[in-house]
Amino acid sequence: MSKVGVNLENSKIREKLGKIKHKIAVLSGKGGVGKSMVSLMLSLALAKEKHRGLVGLLDADITGPSIPKMLNLRGRKPVVSGETIFPIESEQGIKVMSIDFFLRSEETPVIWRGPLKSKAITQFLSQVEWGELDFLIIDLPPGTGDEALTVAQTLQGNIDGAIIVTIPSQVSKFVVKKAISFARELNIPIIGVVENMSGITCPKCGTFIETFPGKAGEEIAEELNINFLGKVPMDPKLSKSLDEGISFLDKDLESSITIKNLFEISAKVEELMNK
Amino acid sequence: MSKVGVNLENSKIREKLGKIKHKIAVLSGKGGVGKSMVSLMLSLALAKEKHRGLVGLLDADITGPSIPKMLNLRGRKPVVSGETIFPIESEQGIKVMSIDFFLRSEETPVIWRGPLKSKAITQFLSQVEWGELDFLIIDLPPGTGDEALTVAQTLQGNIDGAIIVTIPSQVSKFVVKKAISFARELNIPIIGVVENMSGITCPKCGTFIETFPGKAGEEIAEELNINFLGKVPMDPKLSKSLDEGISFLDKDLESSITIKNLFEISAKVEELMNK
Repeated sequence: MSKVGVNLENSKIREKLGKIKHKIAVLSGKGGVGKSMVSLMLSLALAKEKHRGLVGLLDADITGPSIPKMLNLRGRKPVVSGETIFPIESEQGIKVMSIDFFLRSEETPVIWRGPLKSKAITQFLSQVEWGELDFLIIDLPPGTGDEALTVAQTLQGNIDGAIIVTIPSQVSKFVVKKAISFARELNIPIIGVVENMSGITCPKCGTFIETFPGKAGEEIAEELNINFLGKVPMDPKLSKSLDEGISFLDKDLESSITIKNLFEISAKVEELMNK
Repeated sequence: MSKVGVNLENSKIREKLGKIKHKIAVLSGKGGVGKSMVSLMLSLALAKEKHRGLVGLLDADITGPSIPKMLNLRGRKPVVSGETIFPIESEQGIKVMSIDFFLRSEETPVIWRGPLKSKAITQFLSQVEWGELDFLIIDLPPGTGDEALTVAQTLQGNIDGAIIVTIPSQVSKFVVKKAISFARELNIPIIGVVENMSGITCPKCGTFIETFPGKAGEEIAEELNINFLGKVPMDPKLSKSLDEGISFLDKDLESSITIKNLFEISAKVEELMNK
C-alpha cells in the first residue's frame, strides 16, 4: 500500500475507535492459556455490571477464531453497508466481531500468508462500526508473530494497555515474559497479569490440585514490576458451558469460583482504567 | 528469491532430510494443547526404546520455542560450520534444533514478519545436519498461519505424515478440525489424533476429574476417519519436571499414567510407520 493509503487507513482506524472510552488488548506469548476465555469473561463481566450494550469484543485471532463459538453466535452474518461492517450483538449485550463470521463452513481453515492476515485485521480496525463504547476488548492472536505485531502496531498510541494471560508453569512464564518484552518494545502499557488454570478443586473430596505447579503469574508481576490481577482456577462446568455457548441463565455457573475471580479481575481492571 | 534459488534450497532440504527414515510433524490448530510436550515425549520414548541417538526433534515454533527449556538445554550453542548447523544432542539421546539456541536472552521475543520466519524455518530445514536418523519429529507452530504453512509446504512429499493433538473440549475440536483440513489440502497424510489433557486424578481420593469435558479426540477420529492414538491425562509431576528440564532419573515419573500412555502412543506410531 502507498504511504497515502496507509495514512488514510490510519485516520479511518482513529475515527472508528474514536468513540470508545477504553481499548484493552488481551495478550499472551503462549497459546492455549485461556486468552480467549479471559477476553470473553471480562467482556461479559463488564456488560453484566453497568456497561450493557457498551462493550465490544474483537476476536483478532485470525487463524483460530473461537469467540463466536463460545457465545453461540456461529453462522450469524454481520451487516455490511458499503465499506462499513456492523458487529453482532450477543444476548449478553456485547458487540462482537470475528473473522469466523466470514468463513464458509466449520472446517474451513484460514490458511493465509502474513500480509493477507495483516490486511484482514487492519480492515476490521478501520471498517467495523462499533459506535459508542465504554470498553473494547481485543483478543489478540497468540505469540509475537505477524498477527499480534500488526494489531499491536496499528493500536500503538490508540490503546490503554494490555492484559497478559499466563498459566502457572515455568515454561509458560518463560514464553509469556517474551510477550511482555514485545509489548514494551511497542510502547504498549501493561495493565496487569492474570494467572489462569491455577488448579482445580476435586468435586468429591474438595482437594485443590495444582495442575501446572508454579507461580508464573505472581513471579512475572514481581520480576517485571506489573500489577498482579488474580488467579483463575479451572472449572469443567465453565469449559462445558463455553463449548455449548455460554449463558448466564445456567444455574451451574452461579457458584463458580472461576467466574467469581474473573468478575473480580474485571472490577480491578475497571478501577485501574478510571485512575 | 529467484526460482533457481528456491530449487537449490529444495534440493538442499531433500539432501539434509535424505538420511532420515521417518519424518513426522506434530500439528494442532489450537495453541497450548500440549503439542510441544507430545513432540518431546514421543521423541524421548523412541530414543529410550531402541533408537537412541537416532531421533531428531525440530522445534519449528519460531515465536515461542519451548523444547530447549523442557530438556534443560537452554544457553547451549550449536556448532556452525560454513553453511551447516549441527543439532545439540540431549542426555536422553535425541538431537535437538530450535531457534531458541540462537536468541540472546531469556526475554528476547521473536518479533518477525512472516517472510523472515519462513526464511528461518527453510534455513533450518536446509542447513541442519541431522545425519542418519530413524525418526525426525517436527514440532510445528500452532495454527494454520505462516509458520505452519511454510513448514508444511516445504515438507510436502518429504514427510510421512502428521500427528494431530487436541484437548477434549468442543472449542478445541472445532479449531483442530480446521488444522486437519489444512493438512489435507497440502496432501499431508494424517497418522492419527492424540487427545491430551483428558483429565486429572485427585491425588487424595483418586477421583478422575474431566478438566475439559468432551471427547474431541475420539470424535475427530470418527468423523474424519483417522486413527485415534490415545488419551493422555494431565500430570502435575510431569509439568513440574518439564519446567525444570525433564530427566528420566526422576523416580516420581516412573508411575505416571501420563508417561505410560505417551509411550504406548509412541509404540503405536512406530507400528504404523512400519506397516
